[in-house]
Amino acid sequence: MSRMDRGEIDFILDGLLDLDSLLSRPRFSHLDRDALSQVLDTAAGLADDKFGPHYHEADKHEPDRINGKVVMLPAVQEAVDAFAEAGFLAAHHDEELGGLQLPWCVVQAAFSFFQTANIATAAYPFLTIGAGNLIRSFGSEAQQAKFLAPMLTGRFFGTMALSEPQAGSSLADIRTSATPNPDGSYAITGTKQWISAGEHELSDNIVHMVLAKIKGAPAGVKGISLFIVPRIRVNDDGSLGPDNDVRLVSLLHKMGYRGTTSTILSFGEEGRCQGFLVGQAHHGLSYMFQMMNEARIGVGLGAAALGYAGYRYSAEYARTRPQGRPLEARDPTSPMVPIIEHADVRRMLLQQKAASEGAIALCLLCARLVDEERTAAEEADRRRASLLLELLTPIAKSWPSEHCLEANKWAIQILGGYGYTRDYPVEQYYRDNRLNPIHEGTYGIQANDLLGRKVFMDGGAAFEALAAEMATTITAATSRPALATHAAGLGEALSRVATVTAHLGTVRAGGHVALSLANATTYLEMFGHTVMAWIWLRQALVADTWLTDGKGDSNHLNGKLAACRWFFAHELPKTVTQATILTSLDRTVLDVDTAWL
Amino acid sequence: MSRMDRGEIDFILDGLLDLDSLLSRPRFSHLDRDALSQVLDTAAGLADDKFGPHYHEADKHEPDRINGKVVMLPAVQEAVDAFAEAGFLAAHHDEELGGLQLPWCVVQAAFSFFQTANIATAAYPFLTIGAGNLIRSFGSEAQQAKFLAPMLTGRFFGTMALSEPQAGSSLADIRTSATPNPDGSYAITGTKQWISAGEHELSDNIVHMVLAKIKGAPAGVKGISLFIVPRIRVNDDGSLGPDNDVRLVSLLHKMGYRGTTSTILSFGEEGRCQGFLVGQAHHGLSYMFQMMNEARIGVGLGAAALGYAGYRYSAEYARTRPQGRPLEARDPTSPMVPIIEHADVRRMLLQQKAASEGAIALCLLCARLVDEERTAAEEADRRRASLLLELLTPIAKSWPSEHCLEANKWAIQILGGYGYTRDYPVEQYYRDNRLNPIHEGTYGIQANDLLGRKVFMDGGAAFEALAAEMATTITAATSRPALATHAAGLGEALSRVATVTAHLGTVRAGGHVALSLANATTYLEMFGHTVMAWIWLRQALVADTWLTDGKGDSNHLNGKLAACRWFFAHELPKTVTQATILTSLDRTVLDVDTAWL
Repeated sequence: MSRMDRGEIDFILDGLLDLDSLLSRPRFSHLDRDALSQVLDTAAGLADDKFGPHYHEADKHEPDRINGKVVMLPAVQEAVDAFAEAGFLAAHHDEELGGLQLPWCVVQAAFSFFQTANIATAAYPFLTIGAGNLIRSFGSEAQQAKFLAPMLTGRFFGTMALSEPQAGSSLADIRTSATPNPDGSYAITGTKQWISAGEHELSDNIVHMVLAKIKGAPAGVKGISLFIVPRIRVNDDGSLGPDNDVRLVSLLHKMGYRGTTSTILSFGEEGRCQGFLVGQAHHGLSYMFQMMNEARIGVGLGAAALGYAGYRYSAEYARTRPQGRPLEARDPTSPMVPIIEHADVRRMLLQQKAASEGAIALCLLCARLVDEERTAAEEADRRRASLLLELLTPIAKSWPSEHCLEANKWAIQILGGYGYTRDYPVEQYYRDNRLNPIHEGTYGIQANDLLGRKVFMDGGAAFEALAAEMATTITAATSRPALATHAAGLGEALSRVATVTAHLGTVRAGGHVALSLANATTYLEMFGHTVMAWIWLRQALVADTWLTDGKGDSNHLNGKLAACRWFFAHELPKTVTQATILTSLDRTVLDVDTAWL
Repeated sequence: MSRMDRGEIDFILDGLLDLDSLLSRPRFSHLDRDALSQVLDTAAGLADDKFGPHYHEADKHEPDRINGKVVMLPAVQEAVDAFAEAGFLAAHHDEELGGLQLPWCVVQAAFSFFQTANIATAAYPFLTIGAGNLIRSFGSEAQQAKFLAPMLTGRFFGTMALSEPQAGSSLADIRTSATPNPDGSYAITGTKQWISAGEHELSDNIVHMVLAKIKGAPAGVKGISLFIVPRIRVNDDGSLGPDNDVRLVSLLHKMGYRGTTSTILSFGEEGRCQGFLVGQAHHGLSYMFQMMNEARIGVGLGAAALGYAGYRYSAEYARTRPQGRPLEARDPTSPMVPIIEHADVRRMLLQQKAASEGAIALCLLCARLVDEERTAAEEADRRRASLLLELLTPIAKSWPSEHCLEANKWAIQILGGYGYTRDYPVEQYYRDNRLNPIHEGTYGIQANDLLGRKVFMDGGAAFEALAAEMATTITAATSRPALATHAAGLGEALSRVATVTAHLGTVRAGGHVALSLANATTYLEMFGHTVMAWIWLRQALVADTWLTDGKGDSNHLNGKLAACRWFFAHELPKTVTQATILTSLDRTVLDVDTAWL
């Protein structure tokens, strides 16, 4: 069983995220822990029955365009239908919208079952949820009735349509245009690329959330507006009208994530593509950032889920595959031992465990912050949650996508030659996971977001809030003998990050912006590892406490302590070197002449 | 053009490997530099014309078994025929065998053109060369006449058949058996797995070099013998006889390297598979290690070649793809700049350059040591070359396969979404390269070979020889102002490695073998990075000298200096942390209970 483990999720929700206290809030008064357990059980069951079984097949037989229609395995349809039927598309929405009004962190925890089972099929409903949230936040009541309502039942699916062939990461340069029509709608014209789930037959309609520029808008990102652009027009009574002049130019063929269509779409080739402005003109990018930030954490959780699936698969393999003998007992007539007995196999397992379980905990913590931002009683708590969320989002996006890809590399390695064949799932995890450092803002873009904006915003308020959180953890851990050394280690790492950040802030304030950001990805690594050390210390605190209290599964809890120990011994020390490089303001990348490369 | 660059190869051969002095030796008196240039030109031309064009196609249409025969693209046949026709199969062999009697380092340099162009097709002739070398070294004259001669012309191809389903890395546990026949041959029975090029129709015959145990042999590796097992029997006059009862059980389907068949073969199902003992009984593993050691350096060079191909492709892309604007000039009405202007793109290029060019230089240096071992006038020099080669082989195998895979990751990243599609070659480089840390001894096995054997053998003689080589480089670099800091950095790194090695040696001598090897892969990383720093300092010395002398292409030479600077600033410092972990004798991997994972 390589999919998400219920015990792992319960440990995070109850131990780390204090689900009980969340459930005591008015918004969740209709819920109790048992009800949430049932939700998680349902997710686990659906993931096993409807998502997992076609994971490999959907990779082998990727969606194809036949007679103008995108054809895929029937199992994908069954899976997304079952997902909708179980109410997951509306799970976090208000009861008055037909939702279950669940905490976002529980919904995300439930989604991790689908992501470990079949991340490519899960992408269709997940994108729909993100697009729906955007309409819910910024759309008019009429737009919500027309477009959001059918997205909550799965009648319509959704996408986010930002990138264009000439403007991948540079949204300032999009060219898709919107021209006002007499009826208040806009005529949309342009081409979008890398649109995941941009075309399929899984739903009656597809609602594209499209960034475009209204004629005469300011240049750059300040002139971007957000539009609802349905694939098929929708009549006022909710029935479908004529097609809306959105054309599939082509399907893109990827290394992995093959089950999710990636598309080039053209809008308005025949001049009759209708879009509906969401919110105010020219505010589109800030709206879209809500979906993007959600999506970034979702990407992180997906990367973590793939890392976790590979960890579990390779651990099981290592337990059952005999090969070789202990270093100190090599008599060839003695029986071989399972490879999990070999030190380097354990290293590869601990590395995967530390990366994937840590990453899952981080992403669900971010989801918990979303709940906090929305439901905390005090304004100060909501504000603190927002700050933390802004700061942690680039980490939640990038750390898992880098280090859980690495984890998948080790899963393959444990299986050896078998791992390199398509008969075992680990190579697919690795191929699928390679997408995650690219989409929803590349690794480099997350680094610039963190160091170029987030740590300094509001006079460093977010960084201070995070440091305060870490300090609380450090204090708690210091008083537990098993964790005092780790607590000291995190304290030093935090202080290193603070010193480096202040130093780079001074460089930046002196006008040397490019120099301050020259090694931004090294900063992202250092910051990310420090955050992950904090996450591991928090997990260790829970594990140590539960072990003392005789609560939980002791193997699981001891595993948490071992992974924490591994992270502090083998990973966190890397931040020392990173801090030195950053402090030295190394200019190699700035000084290199492009002709030399 | 993403294949190997002639300027790069000339720089290594002339600047780093002192080809001139090698050519002055008696064995190479028939050669001059111009003749070798022609060989390299021929390789480059063939790589471009016959190997590169079907690299992508052969991945898309992998070999298939149709009516019992393995069918592949006709272009593969054309390529291997052209390779044989040009004399490359025999290029390093004596003239009396019909060879060109070229230095091994030149042959390997020539092969790097094929590896960058199409590593999967190149595997067929490369394995043939390795198998042929084994027969040349240990086979009888009759075996050489019957089997080696046709392998030099490409009439027969070869393989190495070591692994078995139940014994991947654990050769002590192979079960393939050899029973003496009255005529002096042996009846071979058993199953071999992961046999690359194990079945195909590219040649009239396939010569399998098979490890098997003669009935009654000692247990473990001391009872292994080496056999020549042809797919089809060969008559004394060289003509083909009946088939030799070698059956293709199945083709394995891999994530990458798809153009090279990987097979499960069964020998002697009908009791009529004939094998011919090579050399003495029970000495098979030591013979096979000659081929394995050659193959390990070949794997390293292949990994490096893939890293280099990705580097070149992504550098070209970065030069021509406009996206975004400089950090300090973000006016959206200004034109976009090529992405090579962005700091993080340059970082990704420098990282690829440092990894791939460094790895190529290391592997060709190893090939040069093979020449030294064979042709140096003084016994002491030959002995020193052997020691260095033994010590450097695990590095040459593992460092490129780890860090050039990483390089390919960054090549994809530079291309962004495009890099993740199968329309661009970088994802294939990445998939192909993922094999390299697995075959010919996994990453973990190389680590145990290095720390468990090589650094301590002969009282540390090999390590001392390497340290002396590094000291020479350090002295030379210290006197050049541009390199003095790097020289000091390498000196510190070397001294760190020496201290850690001595420490672990003491632990080992105290009987704590498992503890001394608990973090062997961290040691491999630390050692490998230190070797790579030495390789880069040697390259920088040549570049700095040539620039002073007005020799060579100044952009290329400045690029060498920049990559060296990058490696010393960003990579070498990692060894500090690694040394700390190793010195602390961290036991996390030993203490973890397998039930916790």
